Amino acid sequence: MNLANIYKPVKGDLKKVEQSLEEIADAEFPLLSELLAYTLKDGGKRIRPALTLLSGKFFVYDTALLVPMAAAIELLHTATLVHDDIVDNSPVRRGKPTVSRAWGESRALLLGDYLFAKAGSLVAGTENLRVIKLFSQTLMTISAGELKQTGVTFAQASTRDYYFSWVSAKTARLFSTATESGAILSQATEEAIEAMGSYGHNLGMGFQIVDDVLDFIGQEYELGKPVGSDLREGTMTLPSILFTESYPEDKLIKSVIENKDVENVALAVEKIRNSSVIDDCLSLAEEFCSRASRAVEKLPDNSARRSLLELAAYTVERRK
Amino acid sequence: MNLANIYKPVKGDLKKVEQSLEEIADAEFPLLSELLAYTLKDGGKRIRPALTLLSGKFFVYDTALLVPMAAAIELLHTATLVHDDIVDNSPVRRGKPTVSRAWGESRALLLGDYLFAKAGSLVAGTENLRVIKLFSQTLMTISAGELKQTGVTFAQASTRDYYFSWVSAKTARLFSTATESGAILSQATEEAIEAMGSYGHNLGMGFQIVDDVLDFIGQEYELGKPVGSDLREGTMTLPSILFTESYPEDKLIKSVIENKDVENVALAVEKIRNSSVIDDCLSLAEEFCSRASRAVEKLPDNSARRSLLELAAYTVERRK
Repeated sequence: MNLANIYKPVKGDLKKVEQSLEEIADAEFPLLSELLAYTLKDGGKRIRPALTLLSGKFFVYDTALLVPMAAAIELLHTATLVHDDIVDNSPVRRGKPTVSRAWGESRALLLGDYLFAKAGSLVAGTENLRVIKLFSQTLMTISAGELKQTGVTFAQASTRDYYFSWVSAKTARLFSTATESGAILSQATEEAIEAMGSYGHNLGMGFQIVDDVLDFIGQEYELGKPVGSDLREGTMTLPSILFTESYPEDKLIKSVIENKDVENVALAVEKIRNSSVIDDCLSLAEEFCSRASRAVEKLPDNSARRSLLELAAYTVERRK
Repeated sequence: MNLANIYKPVKGDLKKVEQSLEEIADAEFPLLSELLAYTLKDGGKRIRPALTLLSGKFFVYDTALLVPMAAAIELLHTATLVHDDIVDNSPVRRGKPTVSRAWGESRALLLGDYLFAKAGSLVAGTENLRVIKLFSQTLMTISAGELKQTGVTFAQASTRDYYFSWVSAKTARLFSTATESGAILSQATEEAIEAMGSYGHNLGMGFQIVDDVLDFIGQEYELGKPVGSDLREGTMTLPSILFTESYPEDKLIKSVIENKDVENVALAVEKIRNSSVIDDCLSLAEEFCSRASRAVEKLPDNSARRSLLELAAYTVERRK
């Protein structure tokens, strides 16, 4: 199972999304073009735009609406990554320096703003008020969630509840907006829109958990960033939370997070990797992905639905 | 002539804008509420929302559309200030520490994102596709303009043309969006929308020039920030540009800007303040403000038009 196969039902339009991102990078002055090309070309798995296109395949599929919407979703995603890398002071993403390291924080900040605006402009172009409102609401949820995260104590960040609400705001919300907007723009029934929203939310939860697990068990060349990046940046994710739950007397994670004790990151990663919490996390991810699959059960059985089901399975099995 | 008198025709609705900003500050978690209250309460002259409301007074004035639009314009303005203060590393605004100094750059960045999103959400609430598109286009123009500014050399930044195009993107564009959106939402004729847009653009140009002059000739207690802030932050504005034009052999400004030679800021300010360029700048500002006044000549003669004319006069005469 690979993404190219899963994306097959929307292959042509996903290419159009790619072209539209390339056109966006052909901007009005060289610095902006360079920055856009750096962030938009060959960037990532394109899962979110693929979700929008696949979600549009159950009712009236309209390329002229779905392609710009899918591009907007990818732009919004990219904008949040560019800004998050400033906030988290991350050195590397997708195997190359982050925008803020390569071009400075000011430019990264303004590039993110431009990407938000460009995304909004593409969504406005659909002239669909429901997706326009959904889109601005999504950016509010994401930025409020990230802001909340900056004020969190170790004790708060160590609970599953906090983690799930954070992931719900940052990752699952954009996934559900990707799927819901595809459904809305293809004139889906309310029931189908809700089903697609639920699929996106649960897939996003599962996806983020696996991402956070890979930060412990992955390989740097697959991840495109060093192993243990979350701990190094002082961020509690599910593996650290479950480990702290299981071994409350072990203060290593707490020390790494609270004292930015980067020298002990490798040891903490090793401990977590060798514990049972990795499997516990993956079970939770599987549970979310099963929920995602169940959510689309009632949709017509077509190649897009099969892709959505395969994507849910892929999300748990993937290694990068 | 004072702003309270100028704002009289829209006094009640400007109060509603203020209330709506206060309600926005009553957010879902304490940190966000604190940050919003810090930036939105008692903040600034509220010229932009007043422009939206006044511009709505010539055709079908609809409070339910114009008040949220005016609030959105103020939110967008606030968001750009919060982000600009990060980019410019500014310590003080409106007499108190900037968000990035008081709360850190990460929070300032995310607060700005939230404000953009909230603004977008209010505009989406008008359900008017034309203003929705205008709004996202405006944010693109502003962020692209600021990004361009980060890559500018001293030689490029020393030309009037560059300065005018920069001010056009950062200040005049938001002023014209404020006036145009008021016109569009009040069902103005195309001719009137264009006239209001031209008024806003020219007023914004004049307003920014005066702002940049006040940074040299104002008093710190009036400005809410130290005199000479632009030079200190390495930014060429019209007074420095005209001074460099008039005295090409004087290398003081160049040294201050290029070498971040802050010790010579006071001397540079003194030289510019005592030269004729201040009057030259104010003449240019007056010219823009006269153009603004001429743009609204053909609109019906009512109290809102008188306010717009007074605002154009006030813009040149103001001292803070």
